[in-house]
Amino acid sequence: MEQERCPNHGLESMPIGKAFTLLEPGPVVLVTTNDGTKNNIMTISWTMVIDFTPKFAMTTGPWNHSYAALRESRECVISIPTVDLLDKVVGVGTCSGVDTDKFAKFGLTPVRGKHVRAPLIKECLANIECKVIDIVEQHNIVVLEGVAAYFDTSRTEKRTVHAVGDGTFVVDGRRLNRREMMSSKLPDGV
Amino acid sequence: MEQERCPNHGLESMPIGKAFTLLEPGPVVLVTTNDGTKNNIMTISWTMVIDFTPKFAMTTGPWNHSYAALRESRECVISIPTVDLLDKVVGVGTCSGVDTDKFAKFGLTPVRGKHVRAPLIKECLANIECKVIDIVEQHNIVVLEGVAAYFDTSRTEKRTVHAVGDGTFVVDGRRLNRREMMSSKLPDGV
Repeated sequence: MEQERCPNHGLESMPIGKAFTLLEPGPVVLVTTNDGTKNNIMTISWTMVIDFTPKFAMTTGPWNHSYAALRESRECVISIPTVDLLDKVVGVGTCSGVDTDKFAKFGLTPVRGKHVRAPLIKECLANIECKVIDIVEQHNIVVLEGVAAYFDTSRTEKRTVHAVGDGTFVVDGRRLNRREMMSSKLPDGV
Repeated sequence: MEQERCPNHGLESMPIGKAFTLLEPGPVVLVTTNDGTKNNIMTISWTMVIDFTPKFAMTTGPWNHSYAALRESRECVISIPTVDLLDKVVGVGTCSGVDTDKFAKFGLTPVRGKHVRAPLIKECLANIECKVIDIVEQHNIVVLEGVAAYFDTSRTEKRTVHAVGDGTFVVDGRRLNRREMMSSKLPDGV
């Protein structure tokens, strides 16, 4: 049954036009898929926004077990974890869905979304339900359209982490405001 | 004349196999081009790594004045600014190369690279000379190969900034080490 807000978690809908602001800063993310019977999760750092509607690009390929489900189902959820989840994020990224139920192993809770079978992750700060709209095979780039977004307004820890790629991670620090300088460039409603 | 290290700035060559670690955390970057006569700079937040060699993807298109030079010359430099340069970065992103010499306006110094005519930016923490290897027109994705990288080892300020997309920017905070957990996943030499 579809619902605006699930009673069992704090994930509230956020306007889809603001969802690009979840990925634009470049945090490491968890991407969930469902292959028709099983959920899986992968850790991905190689993503970017490609438009404000929003559309995203993500680099992945057959070397990830999730790729077959992503390709077949044409759906996924991008979940944004915070720094308190870092060990789970690294754990998810260093084992395989071939032989591991990652939701069970890492104590993460799948929550049903509204538009896709891939689950939201309850413990994450935000979740974006996505449809695969293209796969650029030559470069292993998957193009996604965000169709619904959720933000856990009840969470106090909101700092995301940025993978450096050498096994270290940079945590969000101070936030600086340049809204006035940038007013001519900001999309409506953001 | 080509040289390993220019005497007038602190930019030292860094191994090209480590250059992906400059972009993987998702910092806002400056991208320089040269159209045969003039240099230009654009501010870009929509980038991602696509492989370790390294290859990068970047979203841009005809709405940026630099795009014509990028498309024609098939070259650019990705420069990584730090937080002390934020007002210049925002300034570069909110005026146009059509009527502005951005190097002059923002007090940035172009430095000749080794492989491309687009200039390095002396004031930035790091610079990556890049060749355009493909343009995925349908999605406005430019695919780049990094061919040389430089890092200013003399700089004390090393914190980069991450655009949120709403006119605010998150500065790098603490760095957490998970190298041991990730040892099976790290590319050689990183």
